[in-house]
Amino acid sequence: MLQSKLFLPLQKEVSQEETSINSQLLIRAGFIDKEMSGVYNYLPLGLRTLRKIENIIREEMNSLGGQEILMPVLSSIEKWKTTGRDKLDVDILYRMENTILNPTHEEIVTPLIGKNIFSYKDLPVAVYQIQDKFRNEPRAKSGLLRCKEFIMKDLYSFHTDEDDLNNFYEKAIKSYQTVFNRLGLGDITYKTYALGGSFSPYSHEFQTVSNTGEDTIYLCEKCGVAINKEIIKNQKCCPECQNEDLKELKAIEVGNIFKLGTKFSDAFNIKFADESGAKNPVIMGCYGMGPSRILGTIAEVFNDDKGIIWPENVAPFRFHVLSLLGKDEEKNSQIQKIANEIYESLLKENQEVLYDDRLDVSPGAKLVGSDLIGLPYRIIISEKSLDLNMIEIKQRSESKPEFIEYVDISSLKKYFK
Amino acid sequence: MLQSKLFLPLQKEVSQEETSINSQLLIRAGFIDKEMSGVYNYLPLGLRTLRKIENIIREEMNSLGGQEILMPVLSSIEKWKTTGRDKLDVDILYRMENTILNPTHEEIVTPLIGKNIFSYKDLPVAVYQIQDKFRNEPRAKSGLLRCKEFIMKDLYSFHTDEDDLNNFYEKAIKSYQTVFNRLGLGDITYKTYALGGSFSPYSHEFQTVSNTGEDTIYLCEKCGVAINKEIIKNQKCCPECQNEDLKELKAIEVGNIFKLGTKFSDAFNIKFADESGAKNPVIMGCYGMGPSRILGTIAEVFNDDKGIIWPENVAPFRFHVLSLLGKDEEKNSQIQKIANEIYESLLKENQEVLYDDRLDVSPGAKLVGSDLIGLPYRIIISEKSLDLNMIEIKQRSESKPEFIEYVDISSLKKYFK
Repeated sequence: MLQSKLFLPLQKEVSQEETSINSQLLIRAGFIDKEMSGVYNYLPLGLRTLRKIENIIREEMNSLGGQEILMPVLSSIEKWKTTGRDKLDVDILYRMENTILNPTHEEIVTPLIGKNIFSYKDLPVAVYQIQDKFRNEPRAKSGLLRCKEFIMKDLYSFHTDEDDLNNFYEKAIKSYQTVFNRLGLGDITYKTYALGGSFSPYSHEFQTVSNTGEDTIYLCEKCGVAINKEIIKNQKCCPECQNEDLKELKAIEVGNIFKLGTKFSDAFNIKFADESGAKNPVIMGCYGMGPSRILGTIAEVFNDDKGIIWPENVAPFRFHVLSLLGKDEEKNSQIQKIANEIYESLLKENQEVLYDDRLDVSPGAKLVGSDLIGLPYRIIISEKSLDLNMIEIKQRSESKPEFIEYVDISSLKKYFK
Repeated sequence: MLQSKLFLPLQKEVSQEETSINSQLLIRAGFIDKEMSGVYNYLPLGLRTLRKIENIIREEMNSLGGQEILMPVLSSIEKWKTTGRDKLDVDILYRMENTILNPTHEEIVTPLIGKNIFSYKDLPVAVYQIQDKFRNEPRAKSGLLRCKEFIMKDLYSFHTDEDDLNNFYEKAIKSYQTVFNRLGLGDITYKTYALGGSFSPYSHEFQTVSNTGEDTIYLCEKCGVAINKEIIKNQKCCPECQNEDLKELKAIEVGNIFKLGTKFSDAFNIKFADESGAKNPVIMGCYGMGPSRILGTIAEVFNDDKGIIWPENVAPFRFHVLSLLGKDEEKNSQIQKIANEIYESLLKENQEVLYDDRLDVSPGAKLVGSDLIGLPYRIIISEKSLDLNMIEIKQRSESKPEFIEYVDISSLKKYFK
């Protein structure tokens, strides 16, 4: 992509209303734009990054056996009265007369799937969607971490019995860990024990350690699992090894999974016939993960004073080619020629590359912008590199550049994915 | 995909409330499910088809130079007051106090892009999104053709002058025609002259001929263009060749494009500095197309008394392999062996294939379901095909099957895309 053609409004500063690191950085780097409190626009680079996050989640949900569907934003208040959540969640529920903007989809998915479940042969089944959700959030001050309108992946599983649910639930935990590993968050994201409700002693959150996180977790460094604030009130030790030496950390919740049991199938009277023909309630689980919150989390935790440092798998582009032009016109045309050639060659190799080809922007401004955007590999062609007969390549996460001889595209192959 | 694992609730009949052909067929074939009036769930096959439509549109919008972004569902009433459309569209506007569910996005995109336009160097720019829209539609009785919640592709272009807009507008018309050709709707979809507003004598709709369409168009068969009901009041002839022999047809509007001029840039005071430094208002165009309505339109126009007939480019799968089992267990196991092998071989060739591998379903029910779903190529392995030492292959759009010898996957290559 040519940066001269890209809608990429880089900003030196943003409104002081934006108090969160993630929204400050993402707005300054031209990834998002604030529409109103808790509501954001995704600009081209932001949407590219969001889609990469979504696709990693999608692949793992498909591997887990989930089937992708798409449920609506709107539903009838009647379904929420059926479960009593019209009253429970009244503060955060966006409502227009009898129409609700869904904050979650148990009330939709349970009758939708349930009416097509007749016998044990129809089970298990798991469906998921990646979709917009709405909560009239009073504390929408954390950028993409707490929005009024946000994107969720929500998967729902339906089972004949508890064993089958437990089996699926354990597989879902592994899928979630694979997702966070692929997103580059694996080393700082912990399975965290949380309150379970009537059907199960625990539910689980996935918490990413961050100094600015709103949640507090207590990490068992032996097991690599944590417990949350509610759990530690009753249990001062790790639920897996009983270790009492837990480390208190701030964290951001990036996923949660829950054994629902028959809570929703009872409310909507969803039963299946077992092999003897007897009717039993369907057992359910739900599995949430927020792609837009994850986008915010990555910006919140991977940055330095110059900007964002995207993990390779989610960066909107892998390479950022910069032509740094000076005052010598002959050299400038050589710089442009080499930069163009490298850009075209990377494209031919199906590498994702952003090329800052702008002619009227100073080297300093290009470098500042490049750090702010934070692509993994920056390739610089400048007077300096020209004089050395080299090109300069720097990883965003490293402080020092390398100078390499550029013969042809094979000189860059070791940086390919 | 194994049909035994697919969430595919085929229905013999649907509620009589569903009066439209498209929703009847799409619900019976397990593509969609009604949530409430004008609001639908997309089930796995429906979502696959929708995504194919969206991706064709996306590719052509990218070729046109559009940059994909994602704007929110929610916006503030203040922006709608700025243009006066808070009052104009009050009946269809979903509103919660000061928050609007956006029915379209001119009020969002104009200030969003506009605040980043400073000089002529920032123009032209074109952005688009594929996104949920909301209209409190009183006549939501046409299935996916008229929904309260629906998916739109909306592109907005920003220009320095009218010539540049006109040039882009003509290119957009070609892009739209390419989209409809690729979707299989090209032969029955016409560029249709419509009222233009103060800036332009005409706008254009794209109308797909359908007996059940809500719109009426007047087609010039010489030019292959039409005029709509409003235009024919003042002008009884083709605007391109003045032919007065126009054919009255029913049609479904699947796209519309509009020269907005300075209507929105004036309202939001969006100006650019020209080469002399003088400030001029930005000139805009907007270009709409509805993927969910197109999904409904295809089902509405391509069907027979047995079900849907999907065009090849949008069918959720290309091949439907059916194992038809009888009473002879030995033959059944041969049938399954061959069907499994064909399924696996098609997958290896990256062909999109649905395999009705269900053991407890009669041949009759499998055939009825297959016609209803309507994939382009059906491959049958049955006692009959076994006895002939052949496999049966039939195009959904043809009435007669072929019998071909199946040596290995190369026997099927001529049916590949």
